[in-house]
Parts: sequence; C-alpha cells; structure tokens
Amino acid sequence: MFRIAPSILSADFARLGEEVRNVTAAGADWIHFDVMDNHYVPNLTIGPLVCEAIRPHVSAPIDVHLMVKPVDRIIPDFAKAGANIITFHPEASEHVDRTLGLIRDAGCQAGLVFNPATPLNWMDHVMDKLDVVLLMSVNPGFGGQKFIPETLVKLRAAREKLDAYEARSGRRILLEIDGGVKVDNIAEIAAAGADTFVAGSAVFGAARVEDANRYDSVIAALRAELGGQPR
Amino acid sequence: MFRIAPSILSADFARLGEEVRNVTAAGADWIHFDVMDNHYVPNLTIGPLVCEAIRPHVSAPIDVHLMVKPVDRIIPDFAKAGANIITFHPEASEHVDRTLGLIRDAGCQAGLVFNPATPLNWMDHVMDKLDVVLLMSVNPGFGGQKFIPETLVKLRAAREKLDAYEARSGRRILLEIDGGVKVDNIAEIAAAGADTFVAGSAVFGAARVEDANRYDSVIAALRAELGGQPR
Amino acid sequence: MFRIAPSILSADFARLGEEVRNVTAAGADWIHFDVMDNHYVPNLTIGPLVCEAIRPHVSAPIDVHLMVKPVDRIIPDFAKAGANIITFHPEASEHVDRTLGLIRDAGCQAGLVFNPATPLNWMDHVMDKLDVVLLMSVNPGFGGQKFIPETLVKLRAAREKLDAYEARSGRRILLEIDGGVKVDNIAEIAAAGADTFVAGSAVFGAARVEDANRYDSVIAALRAELGGQPR
Amino acid sequence: MFRIAPSILSADFARLGEEVRNVTAAGADWIHFDVMDNHYVPNLTIGPLVCEAIRPHVSAPIDVHLMVKPVDRIIPDFAKAGANIITFHPEASEHVDRTLGLIRDAGCQAGLVFNPATPLNWMDHVMDKLDVVLLMSVNPGFGGQKFIPETLVKLRAAREKLDAYEARSGRRILLEIDGGVKVDNIAEIAAAGADTFVAGSAVFGAARVEDANRYDSVIAALRAELGGQPR
Amino acid sequence: MFRIAPSILSADFARLGEEVRNVTAAGADWIHFDVMDNHYVPNLTIGPLVCEAIRPHVSAPIDVHLMVKPVDRIIPDFAKAGANIITFHPEASEHVDRTLGLIRDAGCQAGLVFNPATPLNWMDHVMDKLDVVLLMSVNPGFGGQKFIPETLVKLRAAREKLDAYEARSGRRILLEIDGGVKVDNIAEIAAAGADTFVAGSAVFGAARVEDANRYDSVIAALRAELGGQPR
Amino acid sequence: MFRIAPSILSADFARLGEEVRNVTAAGADWIHFDVMDNHYVPNLTIGPLVCEAIRPHVSAPIDVHLMVKPVDRIIPDFAKAGANIITFHPEASEHVDRTLGLIRDAGCQAGLVFNPATPLNWMDHVMDKLDVVLLMSVNPGFGGQKFIPETLVKLRAAREKLDAYEARSGRRILLEIDGGVKVDNIAEIAAAGADTFVAGSAVFGAARVEDANRYDSVIAALRAELGGQPR
Repeated sequence: MFRIAPSILSADFARLGEEVRNVTAAGADWIHFDVMDNHYVPNLTIGPLVCEAIRPHVSAPIDVHLMVKPVDRIIPDFAKAGANIITFHPEASEHVDRTLGLIRDAGCQAGLVFNPATPLNWMDHVMDKLDVVLLMSVNPGFGGQKFIPETLVKLRAAREKLDAYEARSGRRILLEIDGGVKVDNIAEIAAAGADTFVAGSAVFGAARVEDANRYDSVIAALRAELGGQPR
Repeated sequence: MFRIAPSILSADFARLGEEVRNVTAAGADWIHFDVMDNHYVPNLTIGPLVCEAIRPHVSAPIDVHLMVKPVDRIIPDFAKAGANIITFHPEASEHVDRTLGLIRDAGCQAGLVFNPATPLNWMDHVMDKLDVVLLMSVNPGFGGQKFIPETLVKLRAAREKLDAYEARSGRRILLEIDGGVKVDNIAEIAAAGADTFVAGSAVFGAARVEDANRYDSVIAALRAELGGQPR
Repeated sequence: MFRIAPSILSADFARLGEEVRNVTAAGADWIHFDVMDNHYVPNLTIGPLVCEAIRPHVSAPIDVHLMVKPVDRIIPDFAKAGANIITFHPEASEHVDRTLGLIRDAGCQAGLVFNPATPLNWMDHVMDKLDVVLLMSVNPGFGGQKFIPETLVKLRAAREKLDAYEARSGRRILLEIDGGVKVDNIAEIAAAGADTFVAGSAVFGAARVEDANRYDSVIAALRAELGGQPR
Repeated sequence: MFRIAPSILSADFARLGEEVRNVTAAGADWIHFDVMDNHYVPNLTIGPLVCEAIRPHVSAPIDVHLMVKPVDRIIPDFAKAGANIITFHPEASEHVDRTLGLIRDAGCQAGLVFNPATPLNWMDHVMDKLDVVLLMSVNPGFGGQKFIPETLVKLRAAREKLDAYEARSGRRILLEIDGGVKVDNIAEIAAAGADTFVAGSAVFGAARVEDANRYDSVIAALRAELGGQPR
Repeated sequence: MFRIAPSILSADFARLGEEVRNVTAAGADWIHFDVMDNHYVPNLTIGPLVCEAIRPHVSAPIDVHLMVKPVDRIIPDFAKAGANIITFHPEASEHVDRTLGLIRDAGCQAGLVFNPATPLNWMDHVMDKLDVVLLMSVNPGFGGQKFIPETLVKLRAAREKLDAYEARSGRRILLEIDGGVKVDNIAEIAAAGADTFVAGSAVFGAARVEDANRYDSVIAALRAELGGQPR
Repeated sequence: MFRIAPSILSADFARLGEEVRNVTAAGADWIHFDVMDNHYVPNLTIGPLVCEAIRPHVSAPIDVHLMVKPVDRIIPDFAKAGANIITFHPEASEHVDRTLGLIRDAGCQAGLVFNPATPLNWMDHVMDKLDVVLLMSVNPGFGGQKFIPETLVKLRAAREKLDAYEARSGRRILLEIDGGVKVDNIAEIAAAGADTFVAGSAVFGAARVEDANRYDSVIAALRAELGGQPR
C-alpha cells in the first residue's frame, strides 16, 4: 500500500478549503502540512489556526511536518487543531523521546524527520514510539530543489532498519519521502523502500491554475508508476 | 480621517480570498495581517505565502504586523508578497533604525509597535523613518484579552509626541491601536488620539459564520462611533 | 512601615527549614528567595522544589526574585510552591505586562526589578499591575559587591513616580532595595525612599555560624536604624 | 561491585544535611545531585551553593548530573563546591572533549549522559576521558515517568562498548542508569550491564516522611536484588 | 580639545602595523578598532589577536568598539591585548553596570554606544562609570551609509546630559561620534556637541592606495574644520 | 601528494601580507585561515575583510575553517573575499547538506570539520558534496593543546570511509588534520591516513621573529618526515 500526500505549500492559500477538498477527491491519501517558523528554516508558513480551518473540509489524515525549533510547545496546539500525524527533526528537540511521547499522548501518530545529512541512528533507540520515518530528499525550507540522488542509498538503509524492527516487533513504521518526488522518479523511490510520498509542486503546483480535473490525472499518473511495486 | 483594519486572524483561513474581498467590500480600509513565529510570541500564524495569495483579491493596503524576532530576514519576503505597511517591535531588532530603512527601501511604509509596557522613547530618534506607530492595547500573541485601560493614557502621550513631530516636520505619522477595540470603546480610543483601529473578533469573528452582510453592519457601527471625532 | 527581608542565599542550605524558622522568629518580615538560572546571571541557585520545602516552616511571605530569562514558564511552578511575591527583570520577558498578569493570575503579588543601569520608565505603563518595585543596588548574580551610591538618586526618582501614582490611584506600591544594605547605610536608604530591605550577608551571613540569637540582634539593629523614619 | 546513588531530588530540601547523613549511614554509596537550569530541561533545581552546603555532611562521592546547557562555565563552581563526579549531555556542549578535559582538570571524574534517544556513538572518540557513562532510562527534567524498556537493549550495547574498551585499555568505565529504577527491576537492569544505580523516589521518596530507618530497608532491598550478580 | 580616531576597518589589513604607524604620525589621536562577531551585527572583523599585534606599533590609545553580544567574556582578552578604551552597546549586556565595572577593573576606560534608535536614558544611572559616550550616526555593521541627520538632535541632547553631569560631579565624559563623518560635516557635528570623531573611509579609505602623505592632508583638513570650535 | 597548510593564527597580524608571501615562498601549499566568532568558540579572530586583504599576496589556496555558528550568512562573504576552500562543523548548521551546497555554488571547495568527539557518521550521506574532511586533533578555539592520541584511531576510520567512497565513486576527498601537528608526529599522522596538515605554531610560531629563512627549514623538515609515505 502506498500513500500520496500532496503538500499544501503548493496550494492556493486564498481558497484552501476548496483546494484540500479537490485534491482528496482526486485521490490524495494524506494532506501534508509544512510548518516553518523562520528559525529552524528561513521561511514562515502556516500554523495551527490554518490546520484547524481546513480540518472540517477533509477526512483524510493531516500530516504535519514541523520545521520549527523548539517543538514541544506547539505540539498540543496542532493536536487540538486536528492534526493526525506530527513529525519533527531530532535536532529540533533536546528530548527526542519525550517529544515523541508528547505527540502520542496528544492522540496523534509520531515521526522523526531526517535532513539529507542527518545520521539515521537518531531513530535506533526510539523505534517503539515511531509511527513514521520521514526522509528529506531536499533541504527543508528552501525552494526549487531537485531530488538528491544519495537519498536512494539512505532510503535503502532506513528500509533495512524498519524491516528489522518489524521482524522483531511485529509493528510496521511507515517510510515517507519528501522533496522532488515526481512522476518520473517515484517508481525508483518506491523501489528503494519508501511507501509514503509527499508530492509538492507535482500535484497542486502543476494543476491548480487551469483545471481542477488535473489533480486527478497527476495523482493517477503517480499511482500508475507505483502500480508494479505493491509494498 | 479614520482607518478600520480588520485582523485576518479572525477570518476563515479556508477561504481567505473571499473573506478579504467581502470585508473590504463592506468598508474595511486596511487588511491587518498578524505574523507570529512561535518565538517572539507563543503562536505561529501565517507568513509571506499567505500574504501573496490574498494580494490579488484586494486593493486595500495590507498592514503586516511582525510578531517575530529577529525581523530583518523576512522583510523582503513580505515586500515581495505585496505588503504595503510593515511594523515590528523595537525589542525584536538589534538595529531598529536599520530595520526601518530596510522596510522603506523595499518600498513599504514602516512602523514600530509598542507592547503595553514598552516605553515610548523607542520612537524618539527615528521619527523621520516612521509612517505608523502601533500601540498594543493587549499583549500580542495571546487570545481572549480585554483592552488595557492604561493604553488610553499611553495613547495621549504618543499623540502628543506625534503632534509635536508633525508641527516641526510637517509630516504626519499614523497612530494605530490593536487589541480589544469594539463598538463600545472605539470612540473613547479615538478621543485619546488613535486614528487607525485594528478590529479583531469585532469584525470577522462576530460575523463570519452566518452572514457576509454583517461585515457591513459591524464596520458601519464602528465608523458611526467615530463619526463625531474627525481627525 | 518597613519590611526586612533576609536573603536565603546567605543561609545554611543544609538546614534551611531551621534557618527560616529562626530568622522569622528573630523578626524578619519576608524571606527573600534568589533564583538564578546560569543564563540571565552566571550562577545557578535554587528553584521551586526548595521553595516548596521551606513553605511549611514559615508563615512569612516568600519573596521570589527571578534572575532567570525567560520567566513565564517557571512562574506557575513558584506559585504552586508557595511563593507570595514574584519579581522579575523587564529585560527578561518579551511581554512584561503579560508576565505581570501571569503572576497575579497565579495568586501572587507582582513586581519589576531594575538593574543598576535599567531605566525606570519600564514601570510607567504597567503601574496598575505592580505591587512591588525592586531596585538593585548591586549587580545581581555576582558576589562581594558594595552598595552603588548612585542608587540613592535612582531611589528618589522611583519614590517620586510611586508617590505620584499613589496620589492619583490611591494604591501603594512597595519600593524594595537589594544589595549591600547594612546597619550603617539602611537609614540613608530609607530616607531616599525604600520601604523594604533585602538583607543578605548582613543577617544570615554574619550570624549563622555561632549563634542563632544573633539573628535577633542584627535584625534589631537594622530596625533601630529605621526607627526614626516611619513611612 | 555495585553502587547505589540516591537522588537528592527526592530528599527534604528543608533539612538536606540530615537527609544525606541518614542515607549514607543507611548504605548509599553516592549522593546523586540533579542540576537543572530551566533551559536544557523545563525545571530549575539546585546549584553549587547547595552542593557546598551538604559537602561537610558526607564523605560519600557527590555525583553531579548537569542538566544544563551550556555547561562549561559552571563546572569549576561545582568542583570548588566539592563535587566528585560531574556528568553532562553531549548535546549540551559544543566541545565535548574539551568539557571532559575541564572536569578532569578541575580534579573530578567525568562522564557523559545519554538521553533515551541519543546515539551511543557520542562516546566513541572520547573514551580515554570518560570515568562514567550514564544512560537515562526516563527523560530528564520531567516527573512521574516509568523506566523505558528499550533502555535494556541500549544498556547491553553500551556494556559491549565499555567491555571492549576495557579489554584494549585495561581501564574500567562505570555504567550508570537513572530513571525508574526500583526493587522490582534493578536485577534485570544490572543483568543488562549497569553497575551504578540512581534511585530517586525509591529511596528518599518512599521513606523520608515517617522513618529514617526505612532508608536502611529500601537500600538493603535494592542491594539484595543485586546480590546474585556481582560485576 | 578634539580627538580624531581613524577606523582601522578602512586600513589595509595586509600591513596593519605600517598603517597605524603612518596614521598616527599623520596626526591621528586614537586608533578606532571595530570588533564585529557576526551575531550582534552581520559581519565578522577582527579580535584581540589583531589588537595585540598592532599594540607595539603605536602609543596612541586604541579605542575598541565592541559590536558583539554578549560582551563580558571578551573584555579581559582586549584589556590584555592592549586596548585603552572599550565601548559596548547597552542592548548587548544583561548587566550594563557590571560590564562597565569589568572594563574599568581591567584597567581600561569604559563607554556605552548608542545605536541611532537607542534611547539616551540607558546612560542615566551609570554616569559615574562612563568615560566615553559614543553615538552611532549610521547603523553599525553595514557599509556605505550616510550620516543620519537626526543624530545632530541626539548629540545636542547627549551634550546636555554630559554637561549637567560635569557641572555636578566635576568629571568630564567624552562624546564620540561614529559614522559618515567627513570634512564637509565635521564642523556641524562638533557644533552639536561631539568632541571625538571616528573617521572611517575619510582617512584610511581615501588615502591608502596612493600616498601615505595624504593621511596628513586629510587629518589636517578635518582638524582645520574643527579649528574654530575649541571645546 | 601531501599538503602543508600553515595556520595564519600564528603569523604576525601586523604584517600579514608579508607573512603569507614568505610562507608560501618557503613551500607552504595552502594558507589555513581560522575564523572564530566568540560564540561557537570562546575567541574572535579574523573575518572576510582580512581574507580579502591577503588574497592579492598569494596564489596558494586559502583554506577557511569556520569556527562560527551559524555559518550560512558568512559563506558568500568569504567566497567574495577570495577563499578557495571553506569548511564548517556539522553541529554549526541546521542544514548541513544545504550549507555544503552553498559553498560549492559560491565557487569554493567544501568540507566538514569533526571535533574530537564528533561522530564520523555526519559525513555518510553527503560525501558527494565533500572535497575535504578535516579532523580536529585538539579542541578548536583554545590555545596550548597537544595532539590527542585517539585522533590516530579516528583518522584510520575516516581514511577507510574515504577510500571506500573513492573506490565506488572514483572521486577523492582530502583528509586534513588540525592541531598539534609537529615534525616529530607528522609521519605517524600521515601513516594513519591524513594527506593535508595544518601546521600552527610549528611554522609561523617558531620562526617568525628572527628569520624568514627558517620558514624554509621548518617546512622542509615537515616535508622530509612525509617523504617516505607518498599518498
């Protein structure tokens, strides 16, 4: 099973309710919600109030990626605003295990995000508290980047850790990828081990101006590429 | 001349384009745009991308209040996103005069915001670069607060400084007030010297759910209260 | 009426319960509780757990001086631990009015502390929320300092502001002094306007080793000096 | 040889001298001294002055766990105050090797503390300067937590590294555990490789109110559990 | 008496010894030494090692302007490196009075620097510890700026404070100006109250490439402008 | 091929142009340029203006070691000032991959620096963007330290990673060492895998006062030790 998670960053912020309704109607599995605080990354995007506003418009999970530092204070705000999944960077919390616990105590699924250079061993001792591992295939917070090829190697290494954990615990942790995912590389990325795909400009960006129907065709195209590799 | 500036924080973030069109059609003079970064204040709201998205929907000035620290890096982003006025807190910049210059060099009007306790003498040596002085009549970033009565005294002191400056320079600086402004106190606030009024829940908050027409009536009610005190 | 507030910093931390019982029995009015966080000042002293531990041993007010930055998070902890008065430095909070409100909402009296160089106008717009103004007559967090003579000038300026406020509001704000207060200068300090005196080494320091009775004599000596100047 | 180190955090701060005398008389090997600065963790506890005050009351080693960031400035203060062992978190120092050197130059034993999620490879290149490795089995600075089961796996991995180091260097590094250690799990923890046990509420907490004799029985119970596994 | 203090920032850093010898031979009174740390201002310049290296080349006072935050740690380094005057920004120290004391205890003269917007009341309670007041007439750390005209008003206000202090104490505090001082405005600046002039590009910048003799002529030209206004 | 890179920190800052000309004439391959910001390390040295000033004096590569945090803002300044290689610490950037990209986009070679305790896995996922790996064999920013013996073990581990990378990619990454390198240990260090050697006091320090010719002899002595182990 694969999940496609269009990033709200490429949607039209003047009519977000309509945008998220359209994209989930077109087959999106999750709404990926990028939170930047102008400190951890050099941009400031959207916060809990925006999450709360779109919540009534979709039943799909809202997948909040916190590009903020520190993270603990804002977690309950997102939980109350209707987030389903909350992920953060291990470098952004002094107490990674505690932050994962906070997210779960608030009723959400929890995950760690790995920047391109961040070592994977930050997940080793907290697997029991992880629902998702998100690998960045571009640097968060900066626009116009391409998929970093080295990420395929890193994905395979993460896949191996997650499979080993599943083998001993019986519990599956999702492996999400974010950055430069497109129709022409999604199959290769899936083959390297990802099962959840953030699609940024590939979905909202390409389609939004002209034709809401194109959400269908873009998502269908992404899914078609995944067709041969069920996980 | 008085200006009414509804705060976008109380609007419906799922259909912001429509909200800002309606409120300006109903007579709002400015759109007040509250930016919080989860550092200077314990909340994170909206950033340049949202400003850019609503820009095509209104011709009214967008009045960006930066509750962020530090401020310099994000100023050009808001200028590019269509902001007309940018205000910040003197405590949030190491180089207040420089930041005012940055805003003006980017083609916007510039202003300083004074927290309830912040001394007014932070404006004394930079009046030549001020277009607006904004006094907070509640603490920024925290919800559910009432207008702090002491602000009336502070408004009169600010009014005196601005009038003295206008007398010697011939240049008028606007005096804006933000926090707890309502139909039943706006006249008193205007009498103390304010000429520009951020209306938070008073406009969007009260009216948004049921009836767009109510924007007209709320703004009309605010303006009626101001009727007897032209500035 | 004058208040003498021995600073717990000079007490024996191995038997604090006994120390605070003895010093209040000897006539101390308040227990002054110095909290340092190794950030706002280069020392780390004692926190809420210690306040809670001494609470059952005295009925005298515990006067918590926060030499920490930021301050908001720790305020409820001290309120729960039994603090009666909580003071902080205006430079240590982004939102001074809000922090004063937090302290009062937690059921304590609130105050601002002024470092030797800090301008007094930080109190001007928040007097309605002040119960105490504390002037530092040494630099907080550093040992072995003498009373800074300039503080007498500053005390008179503060006295004038507080008297003017009392005249218009009918409400009295205490004026406390901390640093280098001794038997030989307390009268002069009182004459300059202080009504509450933190006594550091003058009380605990001088007396603790040999003879608990000496607390009586030191406090009596301080009070004798104040005798001629009731406030 | 096993070491039991009751954490002073659970003692009565109003009579610390008596508390530490009693607990060492009852068989405690070390006094564990938890220092929190309200920055690295959201609590502020006790600093060098308190360490200095209890020093004359015990001859047992005082084991200072710095939950502060940054750490370098305060190290000489604790050394002067009589600390014997000083441990800190690798994330809390920009220069981990240097900080270990500072501690040793000040005449103390040095150690690194690993938060539940922190990778163990932070010890790999500084083993020559380590006297203790402390694994947190709860998140530091937060109350009411249970022993995290994953710590047993991590303990075995740490044990392996330390044994390998001892094999090649002939030098033994202690392996300490802190968080949720109780009579009913201490044997299992020792079996996983720990040789030094911080006992928080298990010692002071359970016994302090009624009966100093109970320190004896609690420590005896802990030690009995360790009986079968000499190290 | 007026002092001309060429800023080393405009000198040739490849031959600083020669540069400072030449400029003092040409009549410079002080060497102004600009220290930036890439935190308080967005540039990093030179530190104590460079100060120490030029010290043997001149007997003129070295006037160190710290554009760093925080400031306390580096003060003894500059004192050891031969600085004669050390000035800093009040916003850059939590404990302004203490920092002034540190500078004086290290055997240097001490001063406060006021950014264009910084209120002058930061000097009010520490005049006894000030040897110099430095007003910035541009924003520190940014190149290519012109003298801010408002500074003339601020200079007159500062002059008044310093004269009043001198009248009551008998002690004179120097009033230095930094930013955009040139031959064509130095007379006006002196008339507003400055007695010490940092000359940046006006001295080193204009002259260094071609002709060391031009240092003489530029300094002579500056001094000629001052000729009619002895202080 | 080995590279010897004398550190400019030990040169005479009063005549840097002459110093770097002499040392490159004497056979130095690179000029090592140590940048400290008084935040990441407790010292402040030299910045882009000094780099720009020495640039015309040498054609040898200038190897800038950034001991600053954060690093991104200053990178373009050093690129414009003529730096050829820029290295930084992974702990000093939130976005290591992005910072490496910034350096390369600015036309420089890029590298990571590892503090003595920093795990080597920070290089694992960014090797495609590394030109140099620099291992610190002392703690940066502190004077008078000896080569840490453990570094030889770490060098061998790094060598292995770099050789494996070269084997699969065909691209060679340099392995530089900094701290306590001298004539009597350089051969051993080279044998452990280093190919580029920062020589601090060994070159400038020993020779500068008396006799420029001694640069020749010191560099020759270092190179002689390397003679038997071409890489």
